[in-house]
Amino acid sequence: MKVRILVTLKESVLDPQGQTVRNALHTLGYHQVRDVRQGKVFEIELEGSSREEAEKIVPEIADRVLANPIIEKFTWEILEA
Amino acid sequence: MKVRILVTLKESVLDPQGQTVRNALHTLGYHQVRDVRQGKVFEIELEGSSREEAEKIVPEIADRVLANPIIEKFTWEILEA
Repeated sequence: MKVRILVTLKESVLDPQGQTVRNALHTLGYHQVRDVRQGKVFEIELEGSSREEAEKIVPEIADRVLANPIIEKFTWEILEA
Repeated sequence: MKVRILVTLKESVLDPQGQTVRNALHTLGYHQVRDVRQGKVFEIELEGSSREEAEKIVPEIADRVLANPIIEKFTWEILEA
């Protein structure tokens, strides 16, 4: 089974990396870009896991290892069963 | 309009960051994890852009600024019209 986990900064947290990208895009003439937020994506292959098992361990993994729950939030989805 | 762009390493490119995460997960007892690939996600707000305009500029932005086309690939989607 393949899952995708998106880890992004909480809305209330400043994102200097995203700001830098926005400024670079403005410099290149992309003035339509109002805001950029940058985060991380993890694509994880789980061996022989059922959907139930994935629903148990993926949020656990995200919370313990992939995201910092103080400043980040995560969403996840199953890509391949 | 809000779009999401996922930038990930091409399949043929080694991902030491992902390997490190996989090893950490194994150490924690998550032996179901066979493979981890790490990438970047960008959520971009475009001011007053039509879908047509987004279809023109988003791949351009991804190719020129967000991804390194030698080693990375990207996909994108519209989150909010």
